[in-house]
Amino acid sequence: MTAPDLTSLIESLPRGMVITDPDVLSAYRYDRANDPDAGTPAALVRPMTTEHVQTAVRWAAAHDVPIITRGAGTSLSGGSTAVDGALTISTEKMRQLTVDTATRTAVTQPGMLNAEVKAAAAEKGLWYPPDPSSFEICSIGGNVATNAGGLCCVKYGVTTDYVLGLEVVLADGRALRLGGKQLKDSAGLPLTKLFVGSEGLLGIVTEVTLRLLPPQAPACTVVGSFGSVRAAVEAVLTVTSQIRPAMLEFMDGVSINAVEDMLKMGLDRDAGALLVAQSDAPGPAGAAEVALIEEAFGACGAAEVFATSDPVESEAFTAARRAAIPAVERIGALLLEDVGVPLPALPDLIDGVGAIAAENDVLISVIAHAGDGNTHPLIVHDPADAEETARANRAFGQIMDLAISLGGTITGEHGVGRLKKGWLRDQVGDDVMDLMEMIKSAVDPKGLLNPGVMLS
Amino acid sequence: MTAPDLTSLIESLPRGMVITDPDVLSAYRYDRANDPDAGTPAALVRPMTTEHVQTAVRWAAAHDVPIITRGAGTSLSGGSTAVDGALTISTEKMRQLTVDTATRTAVTQPGMLNAEVKAAAAEKGLWYPPDPSSFEICSIGGNVATNAGGLCCVKYGVTTDYVLGLEVVLADGRALRLGGKQLKDSAGLPLTKLFVGSEGLLGIVTEVTLRLLPPQAPACTVVGSFGSVRAAVEAVLTVTSQIRPAMLEFMDGVSINAVEDMLKMGLDRDAGALLVAQSDAPGPAGAAEVALIEEAFGACGAAEVFATSDPVESEAFTAARRAAIPAVERIGALLLEDVGVPLPALPDLIDGVGAIAAENDVLISVIAHAGDGNTHPLIVHDPADAEETARANRAFGQIMDLAISLGGTITGEHGVGRLKKGWLRDQVGDDVMDLMEMIKSAVDPKGLLNPGVMLS
Ligand SMILES: Cc1cc2nc3c(=O)[nH]c(=O)nc-3n(C[C@H](O)[C@H](O)[C@H](O)COP(=O)(O)OP(=O)(O)OC[C@H]3O[C@@H](n4cnc5c(N)ncnc54)[C@H](O)[C@@H]3O)c2cc1C
Ligand SMILES: Cc1cc2nc3c(=O)[nH]c(=O)nc-3n(C[C@H](O)[C@H](O)[C@H](O)COP(=O)(O)OP(=O)(O)OC[C@H]3O[C@@H](n4cnc5c(N)ncnc54)[C@H](O)[C@@H]3O)c2cc1C
Repeated sequence: MTAPDLTSLIESLPRGMVITDPDVLSAYRYDRANDPDAGTPAALVRPMTTEHVQTAVRWAAAHDVPIITRGAGTSLSGGSTAVDGALTISTEKMRQLTVDTATRTAVTQPGMLNAEVKAAAAEKGLWYPPDPSSFEICSIGGNVATNAGGLCCVKYGVTTDYVLGLEVVLADGRALRLGGKQLKDSAGLPLTKLFVGSEGLLGIVTEVTLRLLPPQAPACTVVGSFGSVRAAVEAVLTVTSQIRPAMLEFMDGVSINAVEDMLKMGLDRDAGALLVAQSDAPGPAGAAEVALIEEAFGACGAAEVFATSDPVESEAFTAARRAAIPAVERIGALLLEDVGVPLPALPDLIDGVGAIAAENDVLISVIAHAGDGNTHPLIVHDPADAEETARANRAFGQIMDLAISLGGTITGEHGVGRLKKGWLRDQVGDDVMDLMEMIKSAVDPKGLLNPGVMLS
Repeated sequence: MTAPDLTSLIESLPRGMVITDPDVLSAYRYDRANDPDAGTPAALVRPMTTEHVQTAVRWAAAHDVPIITRGAGTSLSGGSTAVDGALTISTEKMRQLTVDTATRTAVTQPGMLNAEVKAAAAEKGLWYPPDPSSFEICSIGGNVATNAGGLCCVKYGVTTDYVLGLEVVLADGRALRLGGKQLKDSAGLPLTKLFVGSEGLLGIVTEVTLRLLPPQAPACTVVGSFGSVRAAVEAVLTVTSQIRPAMLEFMDGVSINAVEDMLKMGLDRDAGALLVAQSDAPGPAGAAEVALIEEAFGACGAAEVFATSDPVESEAFTAARRAAIPAVERIGALLLEDVGVPLPALPDLIDGVGAIAAENDVLISVIAHAGDGNTHPLIVHDPADAEETARANRAFGQIMDLAISLGGTITGEHGVGRLKKGWLRDQVGDDVMDLMEMIKSAVDPKGLLNPGVMLS
C-alpha cells in the first residue's frame, strides 16, 4: 500500500490527535497475541468524542484507507494488531463515564478499563459482573467487541448479557444509537446483540449502556488440589451437574508452579491440578453449596480441600488463577488457545490436549474457566526456535480441530481475530461463513473496518 | 396477487402436508391481534422436518411466493397474520424434543409449546425459565422469533438468554446451524443472537437448543393492594431500587375486576391497583427480601399486604395476573400495547396513559411486568363502532409516541409485527431503519419471509 496523504485528516481533528511519530506508532503495532506479522499503522488517531471518530472514519472512507480499532490492546487473538497502511483508531482517550442509580445503568465511552467501570459502579453501591482475567488492563469497548467472558460468568453471564445499548459509528461515518436504558426492548432486529461480539467488523463502539446489578453477596471459596488433571475434571462435572457455582476455575500442575514461582503464596507444587470454586448463595443455601463442592472434590479424590469465607483469602486464590497467563508466559512465549466444549466433553478435550502436547513435543499448560467448558491451553515455545515454533503452531491447529470434533468452539471468549480465522470455516461451515460475509458486506461494503480480522 | 400453481409443491411433500381446503385456511388467517386486514393463505404447509421446510421454501423462492411463518398464532402484534397469496408455513407439527441432563440443554423443534418445554425439563429435574403469560398456548419457535419475555424475566432474563443454538432455514432454502450446546461461543458474528427476536424476517427457526437451569427454589409471594395506581408504581420503584425480585407484576382496578369476574377468587374489587411480587432467594435472604417488599408496599400506602409461601396460593395470584388479558378481553375487543420505559419513567408513562384514555374517551386497562418497566395498556373498544375504533386507534398511537418521548420502546416483548411498524422509525431513527433494511435485504434479497412484518 502507498502511504495515504494525511494532511486533510490532521487538519480536521484537534491538534495532536493524529500521530505519525514512528516511535509512538511502533508501540501500537502489537496486541497481546504478539503476531510476528504485525504491520505498522499509517497513523494513529486518538479521538475523545464520537464526532472525532466520525471525522476519522469519514476521511478513511473517502480515501479507501482501512481502519483497525484498538481498545487497550490486550487481544489474545490478534484483533487489534496493526496493518501496514491502515489507520489505527485507539479509544484510550474516550473516558467519560456516568453511573445512574435510578436505572441501575452505566453509560460509558469505550476507553474506560473494565476495572474502572467496576469501581465506578461499586462507588454507587452497584456491581458490573463481567470479569475477564485481564479486567485491570482491558477496555470496556474491547470487552463489548469480543463479548468478553471471565471468572464469574459461569453464573452471571458474559458481556452481551449486560449491554442494554450502544452507540456505534458505521464504516460510512454515520453514528447510530441502538437500544437504551430500558431493560427490555423488542423493537426491530436485535442489532445491539449483533454488534456485541462482532470484533469491530461492523462498526466502532463509541458508547456503551451497561446494566448493573446490586452488589454480589459475599462469596465462599473452596480450593481443591488433585493428584491428576482427570480427577479435577471429574470434580468439575460432579459440581456442575448439581449446582451453578459463582466460579469454577481450573489450573494444571505447570500453571500452579508458574504462579507459585511468581506469587510465592504456598500453593501445592506437587498437585496435578487445582480447582478454585465459589458460592455466593446467601445463608444456608450457600453453606449447602459449599458442602456440596467440598464433597464433590473429596469424592473425586482431592488430596486437600480448603474452604474459606475470608475475603482476603478468597481474593488471593482468585488472583492466583488470574495470574496464570502472565505466570506461564515467564516460561516462554505463548500461543494461547481458547477452545470450549459442551461440559461432558471436557475430559476428552483435556486428555486430547495432553496427547497433542506429547505428539508435538511441546509444553502445553491448561487453565480453564472449567465451569462453562472454556479452556485455555497455553502452548509454550521459543519464537527464536523456528522448528519448535512450527511444532507449537501445529499443536495450536490440532487443538482447534479437536474442539471442533468434540462439538465445541475454537473460541469461547477471546474472539477469532487474526490467529484463528483459518479454523472458523471448519467450525461453522460454508453456509454460515456465507451469511457472515453477506452481513459484513452489507454493513461495510468496502471492507474498511478491521480487515483481516475474523473473515478474510 | 394471482394464485400460484401449487401442483409441484403438493407433489414434492408428503400427502396431506399442503392444505388448500378453504375452511382450514380460514382458521389460519388471524393471530391474536385479530387484524381486520388479515388475508387468506394461498396454501397452508404443515412440515414435520427441516427438510419439509426447505422444500416449501425452495418452492416459494422459485415461484416468488411470499411466506408467513406461523407458530401457535398467539402474536399480539400481527406477526403471523396471513397475507393473500402467500404460503403460511405452520410449525405446529414439528414436535420433537429431547432433554440432555449432562449438558443441561433441551433440543426442540419449534412447534412445541413453551409449557411443554417447561414440563419436559421439569421431568428431568431442570427448569426452562422464560414464562410468557401465554406459556400454555404459544410455541417455542414463536418465543424465539419474538424474544418472548414473561413474569420471571425481571430476574431470569428473556428468551435470548436461554438460546444456545439454532437451526434456521434461510429464504433460499439452505438450512444453517448456529451455536450449539457449548455454554460460551465467540466464534464469528453472533448470528444466534441476531436471529432471536428477528420476527421471522431472516429465516425460519427449525430447531432450538435451549440452556436449562437447576429447578427454581420455592418462591414466596407478596401481594399488595393499593388505593391508587400511583402508589403502586411508587412501591415498584422502591423495591427495584433495592433488590431484584423474581417477579413484580402490576394490575390496575379494571383488570382486577375483570379477573375477579372470571375467576371469582376474592380479589379486592375496590383496589386501585394490585402488585404481585415474588422472592425465590433461599433461607434468610428470601425472608429479608419478603420483609423488604412488605415494607415497601406498606410505606407506599398499600391498603392490604399479604405474604404467602404456600405454592397453591402463590400460583393462584400468578394465574390471576396471567388471566388479565383474556379477562379484560371479555369487556370488549382489545388493542394491546406493549410499551416499555426505563424504570424511573414508569409513573410518567402510567399517568400519561390515563390522560390519553381520558382525552380519547376510551377505557384503557393497564397491566404490567412492572419490575422491568414493561407495560401492557389494553385499549378496550367495539370493532363494530367505527368512531370508537378510531379513537382507540388514536390512543394506540399516542401511547407509543409517549413511550418514545420518555426514552422507551414501542415493544418490550411482543415484537413490532404489523401493528406497530408505523412507529418503529420514530423510535429508532432513519439510520437504524436503514441498517435493519440493509441486513434484511442481504439475507432475504427477494423479501420472501414475513413481508409486511416489522419493515415495509
Ligand atoms: C492476561 C490476560 C488474560 C485475559 N483473560 C481474559 C478472560 O478471562 N476473558 C476474556 O474474555 N478475555 C481475556 N483476555 C483477552 C482480552 O483481554 C479481551 O479480549 C478484551 O476484551 C480485549 O479488550 P481490549 O480493550 O484490550 O481490546 P483490544 O485488544 O484492543 O481489541 C480487541 C478487539 O476488539 C476490537 N475493538 C476494541 N475496541 C473497540 C471498539 N470501541 N469498537 C469496536 N471494536 C473494538 C478490536 O478491533 C479487536 O478486534 C485476556 C487477556 C490477557 C492479556
Ligand atoms: C393472553 C396472552 C398473553 C401473552 N403474554 C405474553 C407475555 O407475557 N410475554 C410475551 O413475550 N408475549 C406474550 N404474548 C404474545 C405471544 O404469546 C408471544 O409473542 C409468543 O412468543 C408468540 O408465539 P407463537 O407460537 O404464538 O407465535 P406466532 O404468533 O405464531 O408468531 C409470532 C411471530 O413469530 C414468527 N414465528 C413463529 N414461529 C417461527 C419460527 N419457527 N421461525 C421463524 N419465525 C417464527 C411469526 O412469523 C410471527 O412473526 C401473549 C399473548 C397472549 C394471547
